[in-house]
Amino acid sequence: MSNTPVTVLGLGAMGKALATAFLTNGHPTTVWNRTPEKADALVALGAVRADDVVAAASASELVIACIWDYASVMETLEPAADALKGRTLVNLTNGTPDQARRMAAWADKHGITYLDGGIMAVPPGIGTEQAFIVYSGAREAFDTCLPVLERLGAARFVGTDPGLAALYDVSLLSGMYGQFMGVMHALAMTSSAGVPAAEFVPLLTSWLEAMATGIPRFAEQIETGDHSQHVVSNLAMQTAGFDNLIGAAEEQGVRPVFFTALQDLMVRRTAEGYGADDLTSVVELMMTRK
Amino acid sequence: MSNTPVTVLGLGAMGKALATAFLTNGHPTTVWNRTPEKADALVALGAVRADDVVAAASASELVIACIWDYASVMETLEPAADALKGRTLVNLTNGTPDQARRMAAWADKHGITYLDGGIMAVPPGIGTEQAFIVYSGAREAFDTCLPVLERLGAARFVGTDPGLAALYDVSLLSGMYGQFMGVMHALAMTSSAGVPAAEFVPLLTSWLEAMATGIPRFAEQIETGDHSQHVVSNLAMQTAGFDNLIGAAEEQGVRPVFFTALQDLMVRRTAEGYGADDLTSVVELMMTRK
Repeated sequence: MSNTPVTVLGLGAMGKALATAFLTNGHPTTVWNRTPEKADALVALGAVRADDVVAAASASELVIACIWDYASVMETLEPAADALKGRTLVNLTNGTPDQARRMAAWADKHGITYLDGGIMAVPPGIGTEQAFIVYSGAREAFDTCLPVLERLGAARFVGTDPGLAALYDVSLLSGMYGQFMGVMHALAMTSSAGVPAAEFVPLLTSWLEAMATGIPRFAEQIETGDHSQHVVSNLAMQTAGFDNLIGAAEEQGVRPVFFTALQDLMVRRTAEGYGADDLTSVVELMMTRK
Repeated sequence: MSNTPVTVLGLGAMGKALATAFLTNGHPTTVWNRTPEKADALVALGAVRADDVVAAASASELVIACIWDYASVMETLEPAADALKGRTLVNLTNGTPDQARRMAAWADKHGITYLDGGIMAVPPGIGTEQAFIVYSGAREAFDTCLPVLERLGAARFVGTDPGLAALYDVSLLSGMYGQFMGVMHALAMTSSAGVPAAEFVPLLTSWLEAMATGIPRFAEQIETGDHSQHVVSNLAMQTAGFDNLIGAAEEQGVRPVFFTALQDLMVRRTAEGYGADDLTSVVELMMTRK
Protein backbone atom coordinates (compact mmCIF):
# COMPACT_ATOMS: atom_id res chain seq x y z
CA MET A 1 0.00 0.00 0.00
CA SER A 2 2.98 2.29 0.38
CA ASN A 3 3.00 2.73 -3.40
CA THR A 4 -0.54 4.14 -3.52
CA PRO A 5 -0.26 7.68 -4.88
CA VAL A 6 -1.98 10.39 -2.88
CA THR A 7 -2.78 14.05 -3.57
CA VAL A 8 -3.10 16.60 -0.80
CA LEU A 9 -4.90 19.88 -1.53
CA GLY A 10 -4.31 22.65 0.98
CA LEU A 11 -1.05 23.05 2.85
CA GLY A 12 -1.89 24.84 6.04
CA ALA A 13 -0.43 23.37 9.21
CA MET A 14 -2.77 20.39 9.00
CA GLY A 15 -2.40 19.81 5.27
CA LYS A 16 1.38 19.83 5.64
CA ALA A 17 1.16 17.31 8.47
CA LEU A 18 -1.04 15.03 6.34
CA ALA A 19 1.31 15.21 3.35
CA THR A 20 4.32 14.58 5.58
CA ALA A 21 2.70 11.44 7.02
CA PHE A 22 2.17 10.09 3.49
CA LEU A 23 5.68 11.00 2.36
CA THR A 24 7.40 9.44 5.36
CA ASN A 25 5.46 6.23 4.65
CA GLY A 26 6.71 6.15 1.07
CA HIS A 27 3.58 7.24 -0.78
CA PRO A 28 4.11 9.12 -4.04
CA THR A 29 2.55 12.40 -2.89
CA THR A 30 1.35 15.28 -5.03
CA VAL A 31 0.66 18.55 -3.28
CA TRP A 32 -1.04 21.80 -4.16
CA ASN A 33 -1.64 25.06 -2.37
CA ARG A 34 -2.95 28.41 -3.53
CA THR A 35 0.34 29.91 -2.34
CA PRO A 36 2.80 27.49 -3.98
CA GLU A 37 5.72 28.27 -1.61
CA LYS A 38 3.85 26.46 1.13
CA ALA A 39 4.93 23.26 -0.65
CA ASP A 40 8.68 23.95 -0.47
CA ALA A 41 9.42 21.87 2.62
CA LEU A 42 7.31 19.00 1.31
CA VAL A 43 9.07 19.05 -2.07
CA ALA A 44 12.32 18.74 -0.14
CA LEU A 45 10.84 15.58 1.41
CA GLY A 46 10.02 14.19 -2.05
CA ALA A 47 6.56 15.60 -2.81
CA VAL A 48 5.58 16.62 -6.33
CA ARG A 49 4.26 20.17 -6.54
CA ALA A 50 1.27 20.41 -8.88
CA ASP A 51 0.90 23.62 -10.87
CA ASP A 52 -2.85 23.75 -10.51
CA VAL A 53 -5.74 21.90 -8.92
CA VAL A 54 -6.58 20.01 -12.10
CA ALA A 55 -3.06 18.65 -12.31
CA ALA A 56 -3.11 17.80 -8.62
CA ALA A 57 -6.46 16.04 -8.86
CA SER A 58 -5.34 14.11 -11.93
CA ALA A 59 -2.20 12.80 -10.26
CA SER A 60 -3.84 10.32 -7.84
CA GLU A 61 -6.93 8.16 -7.47
CA LEU A 62 -7.09 9.34 -3.86
CA VAL A 63 -7.37 13.09 -3.30
CA ILE A 64 -7.33 14.56 0.18
CA ALA A 65 -8.60 18.11 0.74
CA CYS A 66 -7.84 20.05 3.89
CA ILE A 67 -8.58 23.71 3.26
CA TRP A 68 -9.70 26.65 5.43
CA ASP A 69 -13.45 26.10 5.19
CA TYR A 70 -16.09 24.52 2.97
CA ALA A 71 -16.57 27.64 0.90
CA SER A 72 -12.87 27.53 0.00
CA VAL A 73 -13.08 23.81 -0.74
CA MET A 74 -15.92 24.35 -3.15
CA GLU A 75 -14.21 27.28 -4.82
CA THR A 76 -11.02 25.24 -5.15
CA LEU A 77 -12.61 22.04 -6.44
CA GLU A 78 -15.25 23.40 -8.79
CA PRO A 79 -12.77 23.88 -11.68
CA ALA A 80 -11.40 20.36 -11.06
CA ALA A 81 -14.75 18.56 -11.04
CA ASP A 82 -14.06 16.78 -14.32
CA ALA A 83 -10.56 15.82 -13.27
CA LEU A 84 -11.93 14.32 -10.04
CA LYS A 85 -14.55 12.21 -11.80
CA GLY A 86 -14.19 8.52 -10.86
CA ARG A 87 -11.68 9.34 -8.13
CA THR A 88 -12.10 9.33 -4.36
CA LEU A 89 -12.22 12.69 -2.63
CA VAL A 90 -11.58 12.66 1.12
CA ASN A 91 -12.50 16.03 2.56
CA LEU A 92 -10.86 16.63 5.94
CA THR A 93 -11.78 20.32 6.09
CA ASN A 94 -13.51 21.47 9.28
CA GLY A 95 -17.19 22.11 8.86
CA THR A 96 -20.73 21.31 9.85
CA PRO A 97 -22.77 18.19 9.00
CA ASP A 98 -24.90 20.09 6.48
CA GLN A 99 -21.85 21.52 4.75
CA ALA A 100 -20.51 17.98 4.40
CA ARG A 101 -23.83 16.76 3.01
CA ARG A 102 -23.90 19.56 0.41
CA MET A 103 -20.34 18.73 -0.58
CA ALA A 104 -21.27 15.06 -0.92
CA ALA A 105 -24.22 16.00 -3.13
CA TRP A 106 -21.91 18.07 -5.33
CA ALA A 107 -19.45 15.18 -5.57
CA ASP A 108 -22.25 12.75 -6.40
CA LYS A 109 -23.45 15.02 -9.18
CA HIS A 110 -19.97 14.93 -10.71
CA GLY A 111 -19.38 11.20 -10.31
CA ILE A 112 -16.82 11.69 -7.54
CA THR A 113 -16.70 9.17 -4.69
CA TYR A 114 -16.94 11.17 -1.47
CA LEU A 115 -15.68 10.59 2.05
CA ASP A 116 -15.88 13.25 4.69
CA GLY A 117 -13.59 13.20 7.69
CA GLY A 118 -13.17 14.89 11.03
CA ILE A 119 -9.66 15.06 12.41
CA MET A 120 -9.50 14.71 16.20
CA ALA A 121 -5.90 15.80 16.50
CA VAL A 122 -3.60 18.78 16.21
CA PRO A 123 -1.11 18.81 13.33
CA PRO A 124 1.86 17.50 15.39
CA GLY A 125 -0.24 14.46 16.34
CA ILE A 126 -0.86 13.38 12.73
CA GLY A 127 0.82 10.06 11.94
CA THR A 128 1.13 9.17 15.62
CA GLU A 129 -1.06 6.94 17.72
CA GLN A 130 -2.57 10.05 19.30
CA ALA A 131 -4.37 10.96 16.10
CA PHE A 132 -7.89 9.76 15.50
CA ILE A 133 -10.01 10.53 12.46
CA VAL A 134 -13.70 9.79 11.94
CA TYR A 135 -15.01 9.22 8.40
CA SER A 136 -18.45 9.06 6.86
CA GLY A 137 -19.92 8.71 3.39
CA ALA A 138 -18.83 6.09 0.85
CA ARG A 139 -18.31 2.91 2.83
CA GLU A 140 -16.56 0.93 0.07
CA ALA A 141 -14.12 3.73 -0.59
CA PHE A 142 -13.32 3.86 3.12
CA ASP A 143 -12.60 0.13 3.20
CA THR A 144 -10.42 0.36 0.09
CA CYS A 145 -8.47 3.39 1.29
CA LEU A 146 -8.19 2.32 4.92
CA PRO A 147 -4.54 1.20 4.81
CA VAL A 148 -3.60 4.57 3.33
CA LEU A 149 -5.83 6.61 5.65
CA GLU A 150 -4.31 4.82 8.62
CA ARG A 151 -1.01 6.52 7.82
CA LEU A 152 -2.64 9.62 9.35
CA GLY A 153 -3.91 8.02 12.55
CA ALA A 154 -6.58 5.64 13.79
CA ALA A 155 -9.53 5.64 11.40
CA ARG A 156 -13.16 5.01 12.28
CA PHE A 157 -16.09 4.85 9.88
CA VAL A 158 -19.18 6.29 11.56
CA GLY A 159 -21.86 5.99 8.89
CA THR A 160 -22.90 6.41 5.28
CA ASP A 161 -24.60 9.78 5.95
CA PRO A 162 -21.71 12.03 4.86
CA GLY A 163 -22.60 14.54 7.61
CA LEU A 164 -21.84 12.12 10.44
CA ALA A 165 -18.08 12.64 10.56
CA ALA A 166 -18.59 16.37 11.09
CA LEU A 167 -21.31 15.62 13.62
CA TYR A 168 -18.99 13.36 15.61
CA ASP A 169 -16.21 15.90 15.25
CA VAL A 170 -18.13 18.89 16.59
CA SER A 171 -19.80 16.76 19.25
CA LEU A 172 -16.45 15.56 20.56
CA LEU A 173 -15.12 19.11 20.42
CA SER A 174 -18.18 20.34 22.30
CA GLY A 175 -17.48 17.79 25.01
CA MET A 176 -13.89 18.99 25.12
CA TYR A 177 -14.77 22.68 25.31
CA GLY A 178 -17.20 21.97 28.13
CA GLN A 179 -14.45 20.17 29.99
CA PHE A 180 -12.05 23.03 29.25
CA MET A 181 -14.54 25.60 30.57
CA GLY A 182 -14.89 23.67 33.80
CA VAL A 183 -11.14 23.23 34.12
CA MET A 184 -10.36 26.88 33.36
CA HIS A 185 -12.93 28.11 35.85
CA ALA A 186 -11.73 25.68 38.53
CA LEU A 187 -8.11 26.68 37.99
CA ALA A 188 -9.02 30.38 37.99
CA MET A 189 -10.64 29.79 41.39
CA THR A 190 -7.71 27.94 42.94
CA SER A 191 -5.20 30.29 41.35
CA SER A 192 -7.09 33.29 42.79
CA ALA A 193 -6.71 31.73 46.25
CA GLY A 194 -3.02 31.00 45.81
CA VAL A 195 -3.51 27.23 45.85
CA PRO A 196 -0.52 25.71 44.06
CA ALA A 197 -1.49 24.00 40.81
CA ALA A 198 0.49 20.93 41.82
CA GLU A 199 -1.77 20.51 44.88
CA PHE A 200 -5.03 20.81 43.03
CA VAL A 201 -4.44 19.35 39.57
CA PRO A 202 -4.19 15.68 40.62
CA LEU A 203 -7.45 16.00 42.58
CA LEU A 204 -9.19 17.69 39.66
CA THR A 205 -7.98 15.09 37.18
CA SER A 206 -9.11 12.11 39.22
CA TRP A 207 -12.39 13.84 40.10
CA LEU A 208 -13.22 14.49 36.44
CA GLU A 209 -12.33 10.90 35.61
CA ALA A 210 -14.66 9.67 38.36
CA MET A 211 -17.45 11.96 37.15
CA ALA A 212 -17.00 10.72 33.58
CA THR A 213 -18.27 7.31 34.69
CA GLY A 214 -21.73 8.89 34.66
CA ILE A 215 -21.63 9.52 30.89
CA PRO A 216 -23.43 6.27 29.91
CA ARG A 217 -26.27 7.19 32.31
CA PHE A 218 -26.44 10.71 30.85
CA ALA A 219 -26.51 9.23 27.35
CA GLU A 220 -29.36 6.88 28.16
CA GLN A 221 -31.38 9.67 29.74
CA ILE A 222 -30.86 12.05 26.84
CA GLU A 223 -31.60 9.32 24.29
CA THR A 224 -34.84 8.23 25.96
CA GLY A 225 -35.91 11.64 27.28
CA ASP A 226 -36.60 10.01 30.67
CA HIS A 227 -34.45 11.72 33.30
CA SER A 228 -36.14 10.29 36.38
CA GLN A 229 -34.93 6.71 36.73
CA HIS A 230 -31.42 6.88 38.14
CA VAL A 231 -31.37 10.09 40.15
CA VAL A 232 -28.77 10.31 42.92
CA SER A 233 -28.72 14.08 43.38
CA ASN A 234 -31.83 15.66 41.93
CA LEU A 235 -32.08 18.81 39.87
CA ALA A 236 -33.73 20.85 42.64
CA MET A 237 -30.93 19.98 45.08
CA GLN A 238 -28.27 20.71 42.48
CA THR A 239 -29.95 24.00 41.58
CA ALA A 240 -29.95 25.08 45.24
CA GLY A 241 -26.31 24.05 45.65
CA PHE A 242 -25.37 25.91 42.48
CA ASP A 243 -25.70 29.22 44.33
CA ASN A 244 -22.53 28.33 46.26
CA LEU A 245 -20.64 27.78 43.03
CA ILE A 246 -21.67 31.18 41.74
CA GLY A 247 -21.24 32.90 45.11
CA ALA A 248 -17.80 31.44 45.70
CA ALA A 249 -16.67 32.60 42.26
CA GLU A 250 -17.84 36.14 42.94
CA GLU A 251 -16.07 36.11 46.32
CA GLN A 252 -12.85 35.04 44.62
CA GLY A 253 -13.08 37.65 41.89
CA VAL A 254 -13.74 35.09 39.15
CA ARG A 255 -16.60 35.97 36.84
CA PRO A 256 -18.77 32.83 36.64
CA VAL A 257 -19.74 33.51 33.03
CA PHE A 258 -19.44 29.90 31.90
CA PHE A 259 -22.14 28.80 34.30
CA THR A 260 -24.90 31.36 33.97
CA ALA A 261 -26.56 29.60 31.02
CA LEU A 262 -26.55 26.27 32.85
CA GLN A 263 -27.90 27.87 36.00
CA ASP A 264 -30.65 29.54 34.00
CA LEU A 265 -31.72 26.18 32.51
CA MET A 266 -31.56 24.49 35.93
CA VAL A 267 -33.73 27.15 37.56
CA ARG A 268 -36.24 27.12 34.70
CA ARG A 269 -36.48 23.33 34.52
CA THR A 270 -36.96 23.07 38.27
CA ALA A 271 -39.63 25.78 38.13
CA GLU A 272 -41.37 23.79 35.39
CA GLY A 273 -41.79 20.90 37.84
CA TYR A 274 -38.83 18.69 36.98
CA GLY A 275 -36.92 19.18 40.24
CA ALA A 276 -36.96 15.45 40.97
CA ASP A 277 -35.24 14.67 37.65
CA ASP A 278 -31.52 14.24 37.09
CA LEU A 279 -29.44 17.14 35.77
CA THR A 280 -29.81 15.94 32.17
CA SER A 281 -33.41 17.10 32.29
CA VAL A 282 -32.16 20.54 31.24
CA VAL A 283 -31.30 19.13 27.81
CA GLU A 284 -35.02 19.18 27.03
CA LEU A 285 -34.80 22.99 27.14
CA MET A 286 -31.94 22.95 24.64
CA MET A 287 -33.76 21.09 21.88
CA THR A 288 -35.54 23.45 19.50
CA ARG A 289 -37.24 20.72 17.49
CA LYS A 290 -38.65 18.49 20.23
CA MET B 1 -11.03 4.50 67.72
CA SER B 2 -14.39 2.82 67.20
CA ASN B 3 -15.35 3.88 70.73
CA THR B 4 -14.94 7.59 70.00
CA PRO B 5 -18.36 9.18 70.50
CA VAL B 6 -19.63 11.38 67.67
CA THR B 7 -22.53 13.79 67.36
CA VAL B 8 -24.22 14.50 64.06
CA LEU B 9 -26.35 17.63 63.72
CA GLY B 10 -28.68 17.73 60.75
CA LEU B 11 -30.28 14.59 59.33
CA GLY B 12 -31.01 15.34 55.73
CA ALA B 13 -29.96 12.67 53.25
CA MET B 14 -26.29 13.51 53.78
CA GLY B 15 -26.48 13.82 57.58
CA LYS B 16 -28.19 10.43 57.77
CA ALA B 17 -25.50 8.87 55.62
CA LEU B 18 -22.77 10.34 57.88
CA ALA B 19 -24.46 9.08 61.06
CA THR B 20 -25.00 5.66 59.50
CA ALA B 21 -21.30 5.38 58.64
CA PHE B 22 -20.38 6.11 62.26
CA LEU B 23 -22.97 3.69 63.64
CA THR B 24 -21.99 0.81 61.38
CA ASN B 25 -18.40 1.31 62.53
CA GLY B 26 -19.39 1.03 66.18
CA HIS B 27 -19.16 4.70 67.23
CA PRO B 28 -21.53 5.81 69.98
CA THR B 29 -23.50 8.29 67.88
CA THR B 30 -25.77 11.07 69.09
CA VAL B 31 -28.02 12.66 66.51
CA TRP B 32 -30.21 15.72 66.36
CA ASN B 33 -32.51 17.22 63.78
CA ARG B 34 -34.99 20.06 63.93
CA THR B 35 -37.68 17.56 62.91
CA PRO B 36 -36.96 14.77 65.43
CA GLU B 37 -38.64 11.97 63.39
CA LYS B 38 -35.80 12.19 60.91
CA ALA B 39 -33.76 10.30 63.53
CA ASP B 40 -36.07 7.29 63.76
CA ALA B 41 -34.18 5.02 61.39
CA LEU B 42 -30.86 5.95 63.01
CA VAL B 43 -32.21 5.25 66.50
CA ALA B 44 -33.18 1.80 65.23
CA LEU B 45 -29.52 1.38 64.23
CA GLY B 46 -28.41 2.33 67.76
CA ALA B 47 -28.14 6.13 67.66
CA VAL B 48 -29.07 8.26 70.65
CA ARG B 49 -31.59 10.97 69.82
CA ALA B 50 -30.77 14.24 71.59
CA ASP B 51 -33.68 16.40 72.67
CA ASP B 52 -32.00 19.64 71.75
CA VAL B 53 -28.80 21.00 70.22
CA VAL B 54 -27.20 21.68 73.61
CA ALA B 55 -27.70 18.06 74.66
CA ALA B 56 -26.41 16.89 71.29
CA ALA B 57 -23.33 19.13 71.46
CA SER B 58 -22.60 18.04 75.03
CA ALA B 59 -22.68 14.33 74.18
CA SER B 60 -19.41 14.15 72.19
CA GLU B 61 -16.03 15.83 71.88
CA LEU B 62 -16.47 15.61 68.11
CA VAL B 63 -19.53 17.31 66.65
CA ILE B 64 -20.33 17.09 62.96
CA ALA B 65 -22.75 19.57 61.41
CA CYS B 66 -24.35 19.00 58.02
CA ILE B 67 -27.28 21.33 57.66
CA TRP B 68 -29.03 23.04 54.74
CA ASP B 69 -26.85 26.14 54.54
CA TYR B 70 -24.54 28.29 56.67
CA ALA B 71 -27.35 30.55 57.85
CA SER B 72 -29.12 27.49 59.29
CA VAL B 73 -25.87 26.25 60.84
CA MET B 74 -25.37 29.55 62.62
CA GLU B 75 -28.96 29.70 63.76
CA THR B 76 -28.71 26.11 65.03
CA LEU B 77 -25.37 26.43 66.80
CA GLU B 78 -25.66 29.89 68.35
CA PRO B 79 -27.65 28.60 71.38
CA ALA B 80 -25.12 25.76 71.80
CA ALA B 81 -21.99 27.92 71.74
CA ASP B 82 -21.22 27.34 75.40
CA ALA B 83 -21.86 23.62 75.15
CA LEU B 84 -19.47 23.43 72.18
CA LYS B 85 -16.62 25.23 74.00
CA GLY B 86 -13.48 23.11 74.00
CA ARG B 87 -14.95 20.61 71.54
CA THR B 88 -14.20 20.08 67.88
CA LEU B 89 -16.83 21.21 65.39
CA VAL B 90 -16.56 19.76 61.89
CA ASN B 91 -18.87 21.64 59.58
CA LEU B 92 -19.67 19.67 56.43
CA THR B 93 -22.43 22.01 55.29
CA ASN B 94 -22.18 23.25 51.70
CA GLY B 95 -21.07 26.84 51.42
CA THR B 96 -18.59 29.34 50.11
CA PRO B 97 -15.04 29.99 51.38
CA ASP B 98 -16.06 33.28 53.04
CA GLN B 99 -19.00 31.63 54.82
CA ALA B 100 -16.59 29.02 56.18
CA ARG B 101 -14.17 31.73 57.32
CA ARG B 102 -16.93 33.61 59.14
CA MET B 103 -18.03 30.37 60.81
CA ALA B 104 -14.43 29.71 61.88
CA ALA B 105 -14.21 33.21 63.38
CA TRP B 106 -17.42 32.61 65.33
CA ALA B 107 -16.07 29.27 66.60
CA ASP B 108 -12.78 30.87 67.55
CA LYS B 109 -14.58 33.57 69.52
CA HIS B 110 -16.35 30.83 71.51
CA GLY B 111 -13.30 28.63 72.10
CA ILE B 112 -14.53 25.96 69.69
CA THR B 113 -11.98 24.11 67.56
CA TYR B 114 -13.15 24.39 63.96
CA LEU B 115 -12.72 22.22 60.90
CA ASP B 116 -14.56 22.91 57.68
CA GLY B 117 -15.15 20.16 55.16
CA GLY B 118 -16.35 19.73 51.60
CA ILE B 119 -17.94 16.40 50.76
CA MET B 120 -17.15 15.22 47.24
CA ALA B 121 -19.74 12.45 47.22
CA VAL B 122 -23.46 11.81 47.11
CA PRO B 123 -25.06 10.33 50.24
CA PRO B 124 -25.02 6.69 49.02
CA GLY B 125 -21.25 7.00 48.52
CA ILE B 126 -20.51 7.95 52.15
CA GLY B 127 -18.53 5.27 53.93
CA THR B 128 -17.37 3.71 50.66
CA GLU B 129 -14.11 4.16 48.85
CA GLN B 130 -15.87 6.44 46.36
CA ALA B 131 -16.29 9.16 48.98
CA PHE B 132 -13.70 11.86 49.32
CA ILE B 133 -13.81 14.77 51.75
CA VAL B 134 -11.51 17.80 51.88
CA TYR B 135 -10.92 19.53 55.20
CA SER B 136 -9.39 22.84 56.23
CA GLY B 137 -8.90 24.78 59.44
CA ALA B 138 -7.48 23.33 62.64
CA ARG B 139 -4.67 21.03 61.59
CA GLU B 140 -4.17 19.31 64.96
CA ALA B 141 -7.85 18.55 65.29
CA PHE B 142 -7.79 17.03 61.82
CA ASP B 143 -4.87 14.80 62.72
CA THR B 144 -6.54 13.72 65.96
CA CYS B 145 -9.90 13.03 64.38
CA LEU B 146 -8.58 11.48 61.17
CA PRO B 147 -9.33 7.85 62.09
CA VAL B 148 -12.92 8.83 62.86
CA LEU B 149 -13.30 11.08 59.81
CA GLU B 150 -12.04 8.28 57.61
CA ARG B 151 -15.18 6.33 58.46
CA LEU B 152 -16.91 8.70 56.03
CA GLY B 153 -14.46 8.36 53.16
CA ALA B 154 -10.96 9.36 52.12
CA ALA B 155 -9.92 12.52 53.99
CA ARG B 156 -7.55 15.18 52.75
CA PHE B 157 -6.38 18.26 54.68
CA VAL B 158 -5.95 21.16 52.26
CA GLY B 159 -4.82 24.01 54.53
CA THR B 160 -5.26 25.95 57.73
CA ASP B 161 -7.28 28.72 56.03
CA PRO B 162 -10.76 27.41 56.96
CA GLY B 163 -12.12 28.61 53.61
CA LEU B 164 -9.96 26.26 51.58
CA ALA B 165 -12.14 23.16 51.88
CA ALA B 166 -15.09 25.08 50.41
CA LEU B 167 -12.79 26.52 47.77
CA TYR B 168 -11.62 23.06 46.72
CA ASP B 169 -15.17 21.80 46.87
CA VAL B 170 -16.69 24.45 44.59
CA SER B 171 -13.67 24.36 42.29
CA LEU B 172 -13.99 20.61 41.79
CA LEU B 173 -17.74 20.99 41.29
CA SER B 174 -17.10 23.75 38.75
CA GLY B 175 -14.82 21.40 36.86
CA MET B 176 -17.51 18.75 36.99
CA TYR B 177 -20.30 21.04 35.79
CA GLY B 178 -18.14 22.21 32.90
CA GLN B 179 -17.57 18.60 31.92
CA PHE B 180 -21.29 17.89 32.31
CA MET B 181 -22.18 20.84 30.07
CA GLY B 182 -19.86 19.55 27.38
CA VAL B 183 -21.18 16.02 27.72
CA MET B 184 -24.84 17.08 27.69
CA HIS B 185 -24.35 19.27 24.63
CA ALA B 186 -22.40 16.54 22.82
CA LEU B 187 -25.05 13.93 23.61
CA ALA B 188 -27.85 16.31 22.62
CA MET B 189 -26.06 16.65 19.26
CA THR B 190 -25.61 12.94 18.63
CA SER B 191 -29.08 12.13 19.96
CA SER B 192 -30.59 14.73 17.60
CA ALA B 193 -28.91 12.91 14.71
CA GLY B 194 -30.06 9.47 15.84
CA VAL B 195 -26.53 8.29 16.61
CA PRO B 196 -26.87 5.44 19.12
CA ALA B 197 -25.39 6.34 22.52
CA ALA B 198 -23.50 3.05 22.55
CA GLU B 199 -21.64 4.11 19.40
CA PHE B 200 -20.63 7.53 20.61
CA VAL B 201 -20.13 7.21 24.38
CA PRO B 202 -16.91 5.17 24.29
CA LEU B 203 -15.40 7.69 21.85
CA LEU B 204 -16.46 10.63 24.00
CA THR B 205 -15.12 9.06 27.17
CA SER B 206 -11.70 8.28 25.76
CA TRP B 207 -11.55 11.67 24.02
CA LEU B 208 -12.25 13.55 27.26
CA GLU B 209 -9.65 11.43 29.03
CA ALA B 210 -7.10 12.29 26.36
CA MET B 211 -7.96 15.98 26.55
CA ALA B 212 -7.61 15.92 30.34
CA THR B 213 -3.91 15.29 29.91
CA GLY B 214 -3.66 19.00 29.07
CA ILE B 215 -4.80 20.08 32.55
CA PRO B 216 -1.28 20.50 34.00
CA ARG B 217 -0.40 22.79 31.08
CA PHE B 218 -3.60 24.79 31.62
CA ALA B 219 -2.79 25.06 35.31
CA GLU B 220 0.71 26.34 34.68
CA GLN B 221 -0.55 28.92 32.21
CA ILE B 222 -3.29 30.17 34.50
CA GLU B 223 -0.93 30.27 37.49
CA THR B 224 1.77 32.23 35.65
CA GLY B 225 -0.50 34.29 33.43
CA ASP B 226 1.73 33.39 30.48
CA HIS B 227 -0.37 31.63 27.84
CA SER B 228 2.10 31.77 25.00
CA GLN B 229 4.71 29.09 25.67
CA HIS B 230 3.12 25.76 24.81
CA VAL B 231 0.60 26.61 22.13
CA VAL B 232 -0.41 23.79 19.80
CA SER B 233 -3.65 25.23 18.45
CA ASN B 234 -3.79 28.95 19.01
CA LEU B 235 -6.72 31.01 20.20
CA ALA B 236 -7.32 32.68 16.82
CA MET B 237 -7.51 29.28 15.09
CA GLN B 238 -9.78 27.89 17.78
CA THR B 239 -11.98 30.98 17.63
CA ALA B 240 -12.39 30.56 13.87
CA GLY B 241 -13.15 26.87 14.26
CA PHE B 242 -15.67 27.59 16.99
CA ASP B 243 -18.13 28.85 14.36
CA ASN B 244 -18.56 25.25 13.19
CA LEU B 245 -19.41 24.12 16.71
CA ILE B 246 -22.11 26.80 16.99
CA GLY B 247 -23.31 26.37 13.41
CA ALA B 248 -23.56 22.59 13.69
CA ALA B 249 -25.60 22.91 16.90
CA GLU B 250 -28.03 25.28 15.21
CA GLU B 251 -28.33 22.93 12.23
CA GLN B 252 -29.17 20.06 14.57
CA GLY B 253 -31.73 22.03 16.55
CA VAL B 254 -29.59 22.14 19.69
CA ARG B 255 -29.35 25.58 21.30
CA PRO B 256 -25.62 26.16 21.91
CA VAL B 257 -26.30 28.16 25.08
CA PHE B 258 -23.44 26.64 27.06
CA PHE B 259 -20.89 27.96 24.60
CA THR B 260 -21.88 31.52 23.92
CA ALA B 261 -19.99 32.93 26.94
CA LEU B 262 -16.81 31.06 25.98
CA GLN B 263 -17.13 32.17 22.36
CA ASP B 264 -17.60 35.75 23.50
CA LEU B 265 -14.38 35.61 25.56
CA MET B 266 -12.48 33.95 22.71
CA VAL B 267 -13.56 36.57 20.19
CA ARG B 268 -12.76 39.43 22.58
CA ARG B 269 -9.38 38.06 23.62
CA THR B 270 -8.39 37.48 20.02
CA ALA B 271 -9.51 41.00 19.11
CA GLU B 272 -7.37 42.33 21.95
CA GLY B 273 -4.30 40.86 20.23
CA TYR B 274 -3.86 37.54 22.02
CA GLY B 275 -4.73 35.32 19.07
CA ALA B 276 -1.35 33.58 19.24
CA ASP B 277 -1.95 32.54 22.86
CA ASP B 278 -3.38 29.26 24.04
CA LEU B 279 -7.09 28.99 24.91
CA THR B 280 -6.39 29.64 28.60
CA SER B 281 -5.70 33.26 27.70
CA VAL B 282 -9.44 33.90 28.05
CA VAL B 283 -9.10 33.35 31.81
CA GLU B 284 -7.54 36.82 32.01
CA LEU B 285 -10.95 38.22 31.03
CA MET B 286 -12.61 36.30 33.86
CA MET B 287 -10.56 37.76 36.70
CA THR B 288 -12.12 40.89 38.16
CA ARG B 289 -9.23 41.68 40.50
CA LYS B 290 -6.24 41.34 38.20
